[in-house]
This record gives sequence, C-alpha cells and structure tokens, in this order.
Amino acid sequence: MRVVSILSGGMDSTLACAKMQEAGHEVIAVHFDYKQRTESKEREAFHAVCDHYGIDRRYLIPLDFFKTIGASALTDETIGVPKGAPGAGVPITYVPFRNGIFLSIAAAIAEKEQAEAIVIGAVEEDSSGYPDCRESFLDAMQEAINQGTKEQTRLTLLAPLVHLKKEQIVAEAARLSVPMELTWSCYEQSEAACGECESCHLRLKGFKKAGLTDPIAYQKR
Amino acid sequence: MRVVSILSGGMDSTLACAKMQEAGHEVIAVHFDYKQRTESKEREAFHAVCDHYGIDRRYLIPLDFFKTIGASALTDETIGVPKGAPGAGVPITYVPFRNGIFLSIAAAIAEKEQAEAIVIGAVEEDSSGYPDCRESFLDAMQEAINQGTKEQTRLTLLAPLVHLKKEQIVAEAARLSVPMELTWSCYEQSEAACGECESCHLRLKGFKKAGLTDPIAYQKR
Repeated sequence: MRVVSILSGGMDSTLACAKMQEAGHEVIAVHFDYKQRTESKEREAFHAVCDHYGIDRRYLIPLDFFKTIGASALTDETIGVPKGAPGAGVPITYVPFRNGIFLSIAAAIAEKEQAEAIVIGAVEEDSSGYPDCRESFLDAMQEAINQGTKEQTRLTLLAPLVHLKKEQIVAEAARLSVPMELTWSCYEQSEAACGECESCHLRLKGFKKAGLTDPIAYQKR
Repeated sequence: MRVVSILSGGMDSTLACAKMQEAGHEVIAVHFDYKQRTESKEREAFHAVCDHYGIDRRYLIPLDFFKTIGASALTDETIGVPKGAPGAGVPITYVPFRNGIFLSIAAAIAEKEQAEAIVIGAVEEDSSGYPDCRESFLDAMQEAINQGTKEQTRLTLLAPLVHLKKEQIVAEAARLSVPMELTWSCYEQSEAACGECESCHLRLKGFKKAGLTDPIAYQKR
C-alpha cells in the first residue's frame, strides 16, 4: 500500500519509516520544517534517510508559524533546552499540539495522494511525556481523519513504536539495519549531539540497555 | 472566557465571532492565509470585521503548503471554480482536511494563549457537503484536542452554526447587527462577488429566504 511517513530524521521516525520499507509499502516521506532549533540537522538527516531507502517522493513542508506561537524551548530560542532525563509532567520542550498539526497536514497529503495509511514514530511511555504522543490522542486523531475526509478516503493511522521502550527501538532498528548513523535526535543545534538534553538522554539510554553503541558523534556521553 | 475565533471574513465565521462578542467573551481572532484565490479579499474582510468589533489580538497565519498540496479549485488555479448550487457529493472546491489543519493550529494557539474555547463557523447540512464541516468530525477533533494537549489545557470546541440553515444564519446576523457589508464569501477573486459560485449561491439563497437584501455588490444576482 501507499503510506505517508512523517519523517523528522530522528531515531524513532526513521525506524517507523524503515518498518514500512520492510513491509514492501510505497513510501511518501513528509518532513516538517517548523523552524525548530535543529532544523538544518534534521533536514540533512531526512534527506540522507530518504536517499538510503531510495524514497523519491518527498514533501518538505515549511511551517513558519510555529515560531509565532513559540511557547517551547524547541521553537523559542530565548528558552533554554533543559539537560538531563525527562522529569514528571510535560517538559518545556513540548510544542503545543505539534503532532495534531503534523497529522492533519499528513492527512491532507495522504488524501491528495490517495494513500491508505499514515505512519508516525510517536512513543508513549518511554518518552518525554508529550500529550500528543499518547495512544489515546492517536486514536482520536484516527477518528477525526476518518470523519473529516471524503468517503472514498480510507486512512489508517499507524504508530508502530507507540508502546516500545527505547531499548526495543534500538534493537529493532539494529535488526532492520536502520542507518542510525544518518539520524539526528538531539535538541541542540551543533556538529556533534550534545549528549545531555532529554532527547540525547533517552537515545543513549536505549542504546545502553540494548547493549549497543550509538554510531553518531557526541560531545559528551 | 477567552476564545480563539477562526475568522476567514466570510458570513459564517463572522457570525460565529459575533456570537462570542455578544456573549462578552474575550476574542483572539485567527485568520489563515492558505494561498486561496480570494485571500486578499478575505484578509481585508478579516481586518475590517476585527476593527468593527475592536478585536486587537489577531493572528495571521500563512500556510503556503496548501498550494503544494493543491487538489482543490480554491488552491489550484488551473482548476475552475464551478458555477451554481452545490450538487451531490464532495465538490472540487473541497480543500483536503482544511478544517482539521485549521483546528489543530487554532488548538496550539489556544493552548499557548490559555484560552478556554475555539469557535469555528462550520455549517453541516446547508453547505457544500465538505466532510470536515460535519458535526461528527468536530466531535472527534474535540476529543483529539483534549487528548493531545496538556492536562491543564481545557478547550471546548464551539460550532454554533453547525445545524443552522443559511437563512437562519442571515436572520441571526441581522438580529446581532453583524456588519455583513464587510464580509466576503465568494470563491472568485474580483471586485464584486461573482454571484454564481457555490458560495455566492448559498449566501444569496440565505438572504432571499430570510427576506433580506445582501448589502455587498454582486456582478450578477
């Protein structure tokens, strides 16, 4: 089937995309440039991953308004990126309803492209505690997409990582020979990943628990 | 309460906004520039309506990617705007999942602004048959917004026109002294409304059945 794959170029979305490739689906990759701090690194990762898998159909969607809304350390550079493991509650790196916006735009692209599914690399438990990564949210979006598109449009929302732990993601990526060296997860914009932000913390923990070594460069690990 | 009002500047969204004003709510107006044919007329109407009601908080959100997606007579200028009353099925003026995208962005703005509600002028039965104007879609989006935002964010999605006929909209607008002369509903970009597209057809039918005269200029009515 034809699948629209939301691909930031991070570890999780790359594995979600790889699973579609493994299943033999035709992938259309969608990348959102929401003026986040690390967009140039993410975009580089997005194209490298698409090149690796031979994905020619790529949508690069600029969403400048996220900067106008701000209210997150990822889109407002006056707010610092916190260091260390995620704590309780919703962290300051949460971007208001980001996955709602991403999934809505992906649904519009999927409807135009007559795709049958949308895949997102959202992870619920073992993550930063973002409300828009919860399965209950994804279920509700599935219903909204069904109700708000044409009768002949039948889109299934796939979130194959939603209940995985980070070490399971790393292990599954290894099994599928996912090119982890091409991916970028860090929340800071720098040549090597910082190794200290929430996202680096979760990624490194996953590799450690899986007994594997992350191939990307870190300033500190 | 504080309400985010999605305001195109057409008859329906203007009445929805007016109802919030009447109820004494604090309104933040959001206008989407999705590169539709008539954006310059709509934007003019948006600002005129905001000026009329003294709404200072305005978000003007550019969404250039709608042109990349296309697939609608409103966003692809190689597709002609049909004339006459809407027929059966979803017309070519349908923009894929437009209200899903609009509501998702409005939810992000509302979360940032700590608003309590979002209002949209969607009309179900007496309209063009767009799937993303159905109450079942709006109910599902309400659930998605609840699930995908922070616990302390409590947003109610209001659609006060969803079950109104066009003549009821016109009558209600008259009762509230809504400045209909400032609004723009036509799908064609021209000085005077065309009077022949679906949207003009529905608007003129509403005025006729309500026994009132539309104050805007038409090329043909």
